[in-house]
Amino acid sequence: MIRAGIVGASGYIGGELCRILLGHPHLELVAPVSRGMAGRRLDGVHPNLRALTDLAFVGPDDAPDCDVLFLATPHRETMAMVPRWAGRAGCLVDLSADFRLTDPEVYERYYGTAHTAPELLPEFVTGWPERYRKDLAGADRISVPGCMATAAILALYPLAAAGLVEDRVSVDGRIGSSGSGSGAGPMNLHAERSGAMRVFAPAGHRHEAEVAQATGLTVSMSATGVEAVRGAQVLCRATLTAELREPELRRVYRDCYGAEPFVRVVAQRRGLYRLPEPKILSGSNFCDVGFALDADRGQVVAVAALDNLVKGAAGNAVQCVNIRQGWPERLGLEFPGLHPL
Amino acid sequence: MIRAGIVGASGYIGGELCRILLGHPHLELVAPVSRGMAGRRLDGVHPNLRALTDLAFVGPDDAPDCDVLFLATPHRETMAMVPRWAGRAGCLVDLSADFRLTDPEVYERYYGTAHTAPELLPEFVTGWPERYRKDLAGADRISVPGCMATAAILALYPLAAAGLVEDRVSVDGRIGSSGSGSGAGPMNLHAERSGAMRVFAPAGHRHEAEVAQATGLTVSMSATGVEAVRGAQVLCRATLTAELREPELRRVYRDCYGAEPFVRVVAQRRGLYRLPEPKILSGSNFCDVGFALDADRGQVVAVAALDNLVKGAAGNAVQCVNIRQGWPERLGLEFPGLHPL
Amino acid sequence: MIRAGIVGASGYIGGELCRILLGHPHLELVAPVSRGMAGRRLDGVHPNLRALTDLAFVGPDDAPDCDVLFLATPHRETMAMVPRWAGRAGCLVDLSADFRLTDPEVYERYYGTAHTAPELLPEFVTGWPERYRKDLAGADRISVPGCMATAAILALYPLAAAGLVEDRVSVDGRIGSSGSGSGAGPMNLHAERSGAMRVFAPAGHRHEAEVAQATGLTVSMSATGVEAVRGAQVLCRATLTAELREPELRRVYRDCYGAEPFVRVVAQRRGLYRLPEPKILSGSNFCDVGFALDADRGQVVAVAALDNLVKGAAGNAVQCVNIRQGWPERLGLEFPGLHPL
Amino acid sequence: MIRAGIVGASGYIGGELCRILLGHPHLELVAPVSRGMAGRRLDGVHPNLRALTDLAFVGPDDAPDCDVLFLATPHRETMAMVPRWAGRAGCLVDLSADFRLTDPEVYERYYGTAHTAPELLPEFVTGWPERYRKDLAGADRISVPGCMATAAILALYPLAAAGLVEDRVSVDGRIGSSGSGSGAGPMNLHAERSGAMRVFAPAGHRHEAEVAQATGLTVSMSATGVEAVRGAQVLCRATLTAELREPELRRVYRDCYGAEPFVRVVAQRRGLYRLPEPKILSGSNFCDVGFALDADRGQVVAVAALDNLVKGAAGNAVQCVNIRQGWPERLGLEFPGLHPL
Repeated sequence: MIRAGIVGASGYIGGELCRILLGHPHLELVAPVSRGMAGRRLDGVHPNLRALTDLAFVGPDDAPDCDVLFLATPHRETMAMVPRWAGRAGCLVDLSADFRLTDPEVYERYYGTAHTAPELLPEFVTGWPERYRKDLAGADRISVPGCMATAAILALYPLAAAGLVEDRVSVDGRIGSSGSGSGAGPMNLHAERSGAMRVFAPAGHRHEAEVAQATGLTVSMSATGVEAVRGAQVLCRATLTAELREPELRRVYRDCYGAEPFVRVVAQRRGLYRLPEPKILSGSNFCDVGFALDADRGQVVAVAALDNLVKGAAGNAVQCVNIRQGWPERLGLEFPGLHPL
Repeated sequence: MIRAGIVGASGYIGGELCRILLGHPHLELVAPVSRGMAGRRLDGVHPNLRALTDLAFVGPDDAPDCDVLFLATPHRETMAMVPRWAGRAGCLVDLSADFRLTDPEVYERYYGTAHTAPELLPEFVTGWPERYRKDLAGADRISVPGCMATAAILALYPLAAAGLVEDRVSVDGRIGSSGSGSGAGPMNLHAERSGAMRVFAPAGHRHEAEVAQATGLTVSMSATGVEAVRGAQVLCRATLTAELREPELRRVYRDCYGAEPFVRVVAQRRGLYRLPEPKILSGSNFCDVGFALDADRGQVVAVAALDNLVKGAAGNAVQCVNIRQGWPERLGLEFPGLHPL
Repeated sequence: MIRAGIVGASGYIGGELCRILLGHPHLELVAPVSRGMAGRRLDGVHPNLRALTDLAFVGPDDAPDCDVLFLATPHRETMAMVPRWAGRAGCLVDLSADFRLTDPEVYERYYGTAHTAPELLPEFVTGWPERYRKDLAGADRISVPGCMATAAILALYPLAAAGLVEDRVSVDGRIGSSGSGSGAGPMNLHAERSGAMRVFAPAGHRHEAEVAQATGLTVSMSATGVEAVRGAQVLCRATLTAELREPELRRVYRDCYGAEPFVRVVAQRRGLYRLPEPKILSGSNFCDVGFALDADRGQVVAVAALDNLVKGAAGNAVQCVNIRQGWPERLGLEFPGLHPL
Repeated sequence: MIRAGIVGASGYIGGELCRILLGHPHLELVAPVSRGMAGRRLDGVHPNLRALTDLAFVGPDDAPDCDVLFLATPHRETMAMVPRWAGRAGCLVDLSADFRLTDPEVYERYYGTAHTAPELLPEFVTGWPERYRKDLAGADRISVPGCMATAAILALYPLAAAGLVEDRVSVDGRIGSSGSGSGAGPMNLHAERSGAMRVFAPAGHRHEAEVAQATGLTVSMSATGVEAVRGAQVLCRATLTAELREPELRRVYRDCYGAEPFVRVVAQRRGLYRLPEPKILSGSNFCDVGFALDADRGQVVAVAALDNLVKGAAGNAVQCVNIRQGWPERLGLEFPGLHPL
């Protein structure tokens, strides 16, 4: 058993990490760290863990050393924490945005503050298993991409890598309320957020920078909060560099993801679920990726969906650790999702 | 009092027409026509009308003649009905798609069937009050645009008319379940439709043709069913022909809609409702239009929201009739919408 | 025109009062009072009022005197405010709980604090139009019942008044999230509150005391927060004192409510809306009341539904003022609700 | 490996059985039977099974023999199927209502048709693991209780068995839309069902008979469809036979369920999830049971929640088979549920 810890274990991503680790055969949760909740039982904050564990949150100073430490901590604060935690865990898996962007200037533009630990950026391997599987094996610093970024990257990368699309692409993201975290405020007050189609980022959403970095494309990204707790979906539109037919497009995606344990190509001619739909992915680590051809306009529309707390965060992080350890990638991530839901 | 009838009065758009007409000071609902529901009370199908009316549906053959007749009937079937109803009402207001597109070939491409009454197309004035107010005065044939089309047209027209955007624009539509009508089927089964982000039209949504016709732009339109019963929203992305600043953009929209009774420019710097949000428009005839500048990419993002059954259909139709009759445009359409909802 | 003010105009009940007053032909909103929001535009807090008003909130000290003042203020605080506001308005309409219970000891038991103005309790007429219409005419102190209390009282009163039910009745209340007000906290955080069936009061819900006082019955009341923003519903179960058949029960309700402008008897044999359903009442001032006979057990099940912010608060308050002024009761309350929604 | 089949595998309960069996280490799904879907892939109907199986539905006549056969088939039809399937499987697990009630007359009263196989009723063991664990070991005929019945029985049995409550109890059930099955009709049309508080059974709900049979109490049961896809909750009210304090009540439930793998006693003093809440149980086999004392009225309110498709059907059935086979009860049922959801 590998000893695992979670800093920020009382938040939504932290809770999802708790759920997955408690069901993981080789990872033992020994340090659920929370400054605010120290001493309280895990299941007092995460009621789905009742009868699964008697663990209580520990304060940062009381946390035992770990083999793997997940940082489910806020953007802007995490870059200062890394040095502090570095000595107490062999491997750090950061789920914040602080080590996702290789260029500190881009970070500053999108996060409104200077990066305080740029020298550490090169140490981090991007938590993108489908692309960096080799680098993740044995990696001691992993930075997990954002939820909508992961969806958009998995949707666009096959096209970009094959040089099939022109430079400028648009990404229309839709996200559930858990994406804004577990802190209560007017923005996620039920009476306001319920039934919303809230365009909270009409342009320049932060994940835009990650998608651009990962695909090498110029990306215009908007984001809308829709009625859901879990779930993220992106609809990407790109112009094809050459005339392409649907079977060729399908082959591109199949070649890229046919062997992937957690990416399914979902692009059917008919059916309610012919394209990726987040709700049937709740709790699962799948990212479904699909596409449609707009032949008249020489465009391709790529769609991807995932659970923002799982493949968009906690599950993807555990998949990376499975790879690092040389374990089967599916370990602890077998839940397939529910239908109907 | 003007005598009004509704063909297809038992559907969702028909029911909304009933609600509005029953509260309208100058329009008297004398002919709620429904083949399937003939003889049944209106409030047996539209429970919100309880205690408001004792009317019952009448069959097509038993319907009295009217001054104004609304056709809330299916696409493809309505074009055959028009000649039949023409003799029985001074003014026909068609809410189907059959007389929206001036070019029969475009109709055939998007609706998959040849237009059977192309000679009637020129008779219809488009039910777009903000643009065709003059033509609607006294018009005897009115064709009301589609719900998402209305939103996209109102969002893009000011930019297109001023020549501010390049030809190719994209429109991402989001729509509630009432948009698929009151017929029960697997696609709108609650357990499947609930919490959905269903990309039912990744490209080439039908309303695309209306938006292109109205704006003169090349439009790529996708549509997604999201969790809502009422409500439609469009997010449009266009490339600017010249560098523009936010105040100039605002002026363009203000100049276009400042005097409009049912279009509000909603583009604030902050706030939960800084951009158009459909849920607070439920039951109202407002279409809210907003915008954001993506200066880095020389693009503008235009957003519009409305109630698909009101400004997207029944309310817009009544607004057109108010104009035709020379009545105040707000007559019978005063309900402002609810917050919270 | 009568000059009206609202203390607590920035809350959800306050906002609903604003909406109704702005559409009321004889009531002019001259004093939307809010300590926290003083100086901000109404439509900055209540976005559904955009284009309807340019009014801004005023602080308590800057509020002009009024003819009618609505107190949409917190329980426990309002009893201290009444003397202060008494001199500044001819009529006070209290929407808090502070003057609903005639017995201060009962108030203390249910609200956990001693009543600080018991001497004022006798001055207040209960804002229950169906019962106290005569007393409301010309009343200068009106106390509006709670939302679920109003529903339960309207459902049970006809049975209690006719002596048809035994003393002990149970009331199961279901309520939307707007019932907990506009203050953000963990309890109404969207990710927690969404899709909830939260039994927040398994027994002894506060409204129990109002229902008992109004009906003279011993009431056991529970309350559950369900997925909705607006809407309250009660399911009441009582044991019949004598054998009764369905037509007799129907007559009892018809006799009681047949002439009421805002109570509809909804008890059909079939149909999706055969019994009261809150969602089609959103924004309307109707309270629908229905019943079913459980002949095998000699019990009656009474069901009532309303919009907790309208007939459960703001609308009911305005109905009382309409009566006080001798105006038609429906004035400003004509909106019938929407279907579908 | 034990060979398992499912008759009615294309429905919602059937789909849940597919999901659980595909993840079960000792049960092999060899016969997913569906007359209507024969030949189609499982994941074409149950999209959450994509990449998990290549199985296709088989027609009744093409189904191979099995060791265990689950009947997820309609009420009234199943009693005729049992003889037909009896020869083709060692163990039949019926999830319909046809073999739940030991008294054919009670069945006829609640299901409106005479029981056609009363002679088979004694062969069936009730699929109530917490009570009939011994009888289920080796049982060849198992009848799984209804979803709300299971919740109500688990909530009331400890009180009834200990003689703590008087005879007449009321049960207020709330249920999500998946409870009405996967067939599309007006009753589960999204625009009508969404946001509903539909009292579809004000009195005499069918599960009432099961609860009465299981507890020996006289039960009055109502049922309301609320906004949810999955999830059932019951709120039961009973009068205590003697004065009781909270710790004594807690002990009664703890003694009854302390060792149960799938019943959790949830009755806390505070917290959003202090009483059973269905949404965090989606996909899990837990039934949470809680209680509250209404000392003033000498009553107890018992609350229970579960996923109607899992502990209320498919999961409970698999738990019974685990017991029958002498396997660990949790096998294939480890998923704990999600928070937030």
